[in-house]
Amino acid sequence: MAYAHKLIGTHSIKLRDFDPEYDAGLKREQGEEKLKKLSAELTRLQELLYAAGQHSVLIVLQGRDTSGKDGTIKTVMGPLNSLGCQVASFKVPTAEELAHDFLWRIHKQTPGKGEITIFNRSHYEDVLVVRVHKFAPDKVWRARYDHINNFEKLLTESNTIVLKFYLHISKEEQEQRLLEREQDATKYWKLSAGDWKERQYWNDYTRAYEDALNQCSAPHAPWFVVPANKKWFRNLAVAEAVVAAMKPYEKQWMKRLEEVGLKSKAEIEAFRAKP
Amino acid sequence: MAYAHKLIGTHSIKLRDFDPEYDAGLKREQGEEKLKKLSAELTRLQELLYAAGQHSVLIVLQGRDTSGKDGTIKTVMGPLNSLGCQVASFKVPTAEELAHDFLWRIHKQTPGKGEITIFNRSHYEDVLVVRVHKFAPDKVWRARYDHINNFEKLLTESNTIVLKFYLHISKEEQEQRLLEREQDATKYWKLSAGDWKERQYWNDYTRAYEDALNQCSAPHAPWFVVPANKKWFRNLAVAEAVVAAMKPYEKQWMKRLEEVGLKSKAEIEAFRAKP
Repeated sequence: MAYAHKLIGTHSIKLRDFDPEYDAGLKREQGEEKLKKLSAELTRLQELLYAAGQHSVLIVLQGRDTSGKDGTIKTVMGPLNSLGCQVASFKVPTAEELAHDFLWRIHKQTPGKGEITIFNRSHYEDVLVVRVHKFAPDKVWRARYDHINNFEKLLTESNTIVLKFYLHISKEEQEQRLLEREQDATKYWKLSAGDWKERQYWNDYTRAYEDALNQCSAPHAPWFVVPANKKWFRNLAVAEAVVAAMKPYEKQWMKRLEEVGLKSKAEIEAFRAKP
Repeated sequence: MAYAHKLIGTHSIKLRDFDPEYDAGLKREQGEEKLKKLSAELTRLQELLYAAGQHSVLIVLQGRDTSGKDGTIKTVMGPLNSLGCQVASFKVPTAEELAHDFLWRIHKQTPGKGEITIFNRSHYEDVLVVRVHKFAPDKVWRARYDHINNFEKLLTESNTIVLKFYLHISKEEQEQRLLEREQDATKYWKLSAGDWKERQYWNDYTRAYEDALNQCSAPHAPWFVVPANKKWFRNLAVAEAVVAAMKPYEKQWMKRLEEVGLKSKAEIEAFRAKP
């Protein structure tokens, strides 16, 4: 069963309809046990993906400050083989990036066949922070939903499995986490002066996220609303969705490996290195 | 007046309707005189484009073997300041390029604001040579016209002036030029064994070019059919079209320079270097 809510068409969802505390009635220990199994499964699927070299996986992580993007990467993606798995973080654009269309810096970082790439923030910032802070005129960011849909269609038609996660926390939970960051010397470096300021735009971000989720969901590039107040459940929900998306290709990838007669890891390596 | 035939909407042109020998009734000396003036104009417009930093120019050169892509770059673009003008040549894709969607390597090379980029071959190869030689299934290359149109729309909405030139030579002219390359030691290096072979696919390429021109012409990203049997006229026609496309922005760029109070080249340089 799925733990995150999957959006695959044009919707008119409201974020308030999703409970950030949701945990499917699981206890933390149960959730962690399930995650362990999913992790092993994911590691196996990554190896197959890599060796078969027929598909790519693009995982987009979005969410408000403190929603747990870094934590998700560390826990869910951490165990993966970094040969064939990379994280691309999109911060404030550089001058060179701003001199190009908004997808220029994004497209460069998309995964090649056999690879998994995790976007820590993404092209969606260009309809989120840009909209909320009016960094571009309405006309410009409004046109971007179409550009994003076209871009993701291009990727999926080239065999990229595109999965987008909105890590859904409550306003109270964010306050809690920001206070923790202030008080915990080991977390203080994660707190920037801007975080409390951004919080003032909570409702604007809500509207911006709702539009992005509603306008850019497709069967080939779904959004997942991930209940993220409980970190263990957030990790479980993301891992479950990634495994569920890759699993249907398992047989095809196995078959591919059999076709080319690969047996050992070393053979797989040598095979992948071929042009 | 325009020397190349501009296509700005969905058409059903046939290449046989365009005379590759066309020269607008000009004599070679007249044409060369005109080109000299256009070159000076283009150099001036480039300087403004660069200093204003508001637009980019993308020039796509396509044509059969020997149609004069290299010659056009040398003669028409050669005089431009290479600070702010680069050529991107797209050869047989590398393994890394093939592991991504067909626009991945193309998008990376698009010009930033203030810059001119010339594509020596381009994303159109993915609906030309790929189609003719069946490097991809029908379904795959047919879907690419839409992807190309979406991509060029993205670029033009980010203030890129997109101009695409098909250098139109006759089959007889190509034969002549291939023979010349065989006999001229200084040109022999330009001849590859594949050139005579590709010639066998003349009609297939004609159909592929006709579809690309007919399906991917738009007011914001026009194709130009350039009569190219006469090299001097080909150069003239391309230069004329580029100047005509940039000229309408002249006042806006001048105004921008006045706004920021730029006077000398040094000031312009310093201005451009700012983030």
